[in-house]
Amino acid sequence: ETERVLNKRLLDKITDPKTAAKLIENGMTVATSGFTPSGYPKEIPLALASRIKNDCEFSINLFTGASVGKELDSSLTKKNSISRRFPYQTNKEIRDKINQRRIHYEDIHLSQFTQEVRYGYFGNIDVAIIEAVKITPEGYIIPTTSVGATPTFCHLADNIIVEINTTKPLFLEGIHDIYLPNDPPDREPIPIMTPKDKIGTPYIKIDPNKIKAIVFSDKQDENIPFAPANQVSQDIAYHLISFLKKEVLQGRLPENLLPIQSGVGEVANAILKGLLDSPFKNLTLYSEVIQDSVLDLLDHRTIDFASSTSLTLSKEGFNKLYNNINKYKDQIVLRSQEISNHPEIIRRLGSIAINTAIEADIFGNVNSTNIMGTQMVNGIGGSGDFARNSSLSIFTTPSIAKDGHISTIVPMVSHVDHTEHDVKVIVTEQGLADLRGLSPIEKAESIIENCAHPSFKPQLRKYLTNGTKQVGHTPHILENALDWHINFLKSGSMKD
Amino acid sequence: ETERVLNKRLLDKITDPKTAAKLIENGMTVATSGFTPSGYPKEIPLALASRIKNDCEFSINLFTGASVGKELDSSLTKKNSISRRFPYQTNKEIRDKINQRRIHYEDIHLSQFTQEVRYGYFGNIDVAIIEAVKITPEGYIIPTTSVGATPTFCHLADNIIVEINTTKPLFLEGIHDIYLPNDPPDREPIPIMTPKDKIGTPYIKIDPNKIKAIVFSDKQDENIPFAPANQVSQDIAYHLISFLKKEVLQGRLPENLLPIQSGVGEVANAILKGLLDSPFKNLTLYSEVIQDSVLDLLDHRTIDFASSTSLTLSKEGFNKLYNNINKYKDQIVLRSQEISNHPEIIRRLGSIAINTAIEADIFGNVNSTNIMGTQMVNGIGGSGDFARNSSLSIFTTPSIAKDGHISTIVPMVSHVDHTEHDVKVIVTEQGLADLRGLSPIEKAESIIENCAHPSFKPQLRKYLTNGTKQVGHTPHILENALDWHINFLKSGSMKD
Ligand SMILES: CC(C)(COP(=O)(O)OP(=O)(O)OC[C@H]1O[C@@H](n2cnc3c(N)ncnc32)[C@H](O)[C@@H]1OP(=O)(O)O)[C@@H](O)C(=O)NCCC(=O)NCCS
Ligand SMILES: CC(C)(COP(=O)(O)OP(=O)(O)OC[C@H]1O[C@@H](n2cnc3c(N)ncnc32)[C@H](O)[C@@H]1OP(=O)(O)O)[C@@H](O)C(=O)NCCC(=O)NCCS
Repeated sequence: ETERVLNKRLLDKITDPKTAAKLIENGMTVATSGFTPSGYPKEIPLALASRIKNDCEFSINLFTGASVGKELDSSLTKKNSISRRFPYQTNKEIRDKINQRRIHYEDIHLSQFTQEVRYGYFGNIDVAIIEAVKITPEGYIIPTTSVGATPTFCHLADNIIVEINTTKPLFLEGIHDIYLPNDPPDREPIPIMTPKDKIGTPYIKIDPNKIKAIVFSDKQDENIPFAPANQVSQDIAYHLISFLKKEVLQGRLPENLLPIQSGVGEVANAILKGLLDSPFKNLTLYSEVIQDSVLDLLDHRTIDFASSTSLTLSKEGFNKLYNNINKYKDQIVLRSQEISNHPEIIRRLGSIAINTAIEADIFGNVNSTNIMGTQMVNGIGGSGDFARNSSLSIFTTPSIAKDGHISTIVPMVSHVDHTEHDVKVIVTEQGLADLRGLSPIEKAESIIENCAHPSFKPQLRKYLTNGTKQVGHTPHILENALDWHINFLKSGSMKD
Repeated sequence: ETERVLNKRLLDKITDPKTAAKLIENGMTVATSGFTPSGYPKEIPLALASRIKNDCEFSINLFTGASVGKELDSSLTKKNSISRRFPYQTNKEIRDKINQRRIHYEDIHLSQFTQEVRYGYFGNIDVAIIEAVKITPEGYIIPTTSVGATPTFCHLADNIIVEINTTKPLFLEGIHDIYLPNDPPDREPIPIMTPKDKIGTPYIKIDPNKIKAIVFSDKQDENIPFAPANQVSQDIAYHLISFLKKEVLQGRLPENLLPIQSGVGEVANAILKGLLDSPFKNLTLYSEVIQDSVLDLLDHRTIDFASSTSLTLSKEGFNKLYNNINKYKDQIVLRSQEISNHPEIIRRLGSIAINTAIEADIFGNVNSTNIMGTQMVNGIGGSGDFARNSSLSIFTTPSIAKDGHISTIVPMVSHVDHTEHDVKVIVTEQGLADLRGLSPIEKAESIIENCAHPSFKPQLRKYLTNGTKQVGHTPHILENALDWHINFLKSGSMKD
């Protein structure tokens, strides 16, 4: 304890989770640390949930960095105690309640969320619950394995509860770079010129008087299962890496590319693994997550440096990180999500953005959030921050889903998260469509020929041919545009 | 002539349009100055068009800043001599050909277009045709009434033709601020901290050897008819300005707001006029167009300063500008479209973005480009640059179109340019929906109640009620989602 709470005056704030959780009252807005199940508080939400006896007797608005683990989202959802939830989630229980519209969920660009909290768009923050490795002598907070929205929450919250996680090593101190921009009209340029530039402090500066309780936890974050790459992901990775090589050959990208952003999941992992076996060297990552494969890439100097807002590692990944922490501290920095996803930096660096689609349409629009236009999966997360402001915006998806009953290439997506204006390249295991400089009709031809699954190509061609019998820049036939989805909902298949 | 071409070595490049136009050969990519029919070349394109005898004997790719006048888009379209056209247009002849798919049109974010040209995404630029007020002793170019994409085009083009427009006064020199950013990985922060900051040069620096021909023109730009504000626009302006006042009262905006971006057209004009009669003072504009009403606002010090990439004034507006040029030169700056629309600056300044929708759906998605999902109107222009990166993104539209047969508030838009993530406020003459912090179902209720026309409210409520019988975060009924558009196409009305 005494090595984790270095501010003497705060020692008497140390208490048990149950007592600390009493600070959270019905109707409050509670904001927590946590990003892609990493670095979120566990003991306090569990204590809070176990206090709630009856359905509907208690509810809070819950703001986080991004997705958090079951100890927070599930435990409170099971007690029907979340009324409003921003800006992102990946948890089954809460997703179900969102789709039942029992929880009001707004799906917000991750870089914009914190500034909008500061602008007062979502009201006051009553309590922030922050996972930390320690509190400094000044009373400042050293976060754990993610930064997320924590600096803004600490800045704004009336009260702060700190959850010191003793499973997270003290030597994480120094891996964070905390920078809170001024708000307009006083905002200044953010002086990041390369992914490795550090511009802030290793701690989150707060008013220590706001810390009303400190609890200790030895609970691990929800485990991220390691996703082995299947053939489909490997094929997608192959097409994508071949494309990047070609871009270098044609002088459109430098030999060490430009800073890469890549999401989480199987395909992302396969792409990163693919880079390991490629001739690429001295790459950089400016992204929002660091997953296991990034450590391998850093070891091999395929990647020189990785900037992120969270460490989304498996248990083995964390062991590896901790066993070589001094080396990795020179190669990794964790920033707030506002900075890791900031349009200014992404545009300046010329990021290569690689994100995943649920479905894409033949005219280049992408759905990343709402299955069949209605059922929320996770949310847009940072994909919009990166896709819009990158120099090259790439979307990947397997060409089929649900045992081939669903084509992820459709006439018209049932929900749009990334517009035709923001999608430059689409890759499936079938191949890659380079959409730059193409008109809608040319995009459609390229996407159908290169990306669609053979079992759906004739049906897509038919849609396009029918469309082109009419006048129109984007030759849709509205009567049939959503038929594929309607058929799937009726018959379980998109096939004619 | 001698006062307009100050570089002695270039005097022998002065020639007639017909001769100059010979530099443009079949198959070339030609890039021109011009933004929102302002500052585009006229004599060369007319000479080129009159050279083309037969349909299909000749075609070029035509890149511009944004929309240009009939001397360029119409004259070449009439000869079927444009094969590819980026990134924006507002011309009837070319729009028709785009909708017939006789011209390949890619609709590109205006801030992104120039960097993508530099990245080589669209191939080589053979010839640039640039309207200028003069050529400096060094051989540099002083542009006329817009900057647009000109600096990039001059930088990249193999050859440059300068069209000196003698109707545009020499004293325009000094109103421009030309800054061409480095490309990644060497890009640096763009040091604009307020709309009035000048960071570049008053001229476009070029290699004078690239100037292969200089012609003189006394042709005026296509006339922008002045749009008087009707009642609907005035009502929209009223709701919007009341909302801004409330934001100030509630401490979410400073008293002089944050830099405003506003489009062209009737509603935009009414909003600017509305500001004139409001208590607001010392506002600033960071936008892409300056229209007549901005001059009035500058005169009254409602607006202190206006930054833009183009002057889109009526004849009377230009007269007023020219008669008071010294005063206005302290209050107006023209930048390249990459800078006027740059995500970095818009985000830093915290711009208030006000753009126009063709239609919006009840879940907050906006269509700005494709009527009935198929027919291109103009293009996304700068609306995406501003909406995504602003601190407050507002869309306006009259609630009905085509004598009330069309509701601009629909169950599902037929094309998405601005996603639910990017639309914070929707305003019609009926009222204003503030969507911040709302879930889709709450957005739908707010948009229907506040924005829809009374004659369509019951039908919209019915759609929503039916949707909410099912599970789903976004309660669409895909079978009916596009019925309103389908009905309009069949029967001429969206009414049930
Ligand atoms: C798009 C996204 C949901 C894909 O995630 P993923 O894990 O690669 O996707 P999966 O292939 O496992 O698909 C997820 C589910 O959707 C289903 N699915 C996939 N495509 C589908 C489609 N077109 N129609 C219907 N269902 C589909 C899958 O079958 C799977 O369902 P199941 O869980 O019932 O088996 C995810 O990447 C995401 O949330 N992206 C948005 C956030 C983001 O991009 N963040 C930025 C970087 S971190
Ligand atoms: C959206 C946009 C087309 C609206 O322009 P506008 O001049 O205000 O629109 P109008 O109300 O005059 O409508 C234009 C036409 O579309 C029709 N229209 C408008 N809404 C419609 C709808 N929902 N369905 C069908 N037609 C519609 C109008 O009837 C009119 O047709 P007409 O010319 O045959 O009479 C225009 O603002 C635009 O191109 N925006 C994108 C670019 C942009 O925002 N730039 C950034 C700032 S400069």
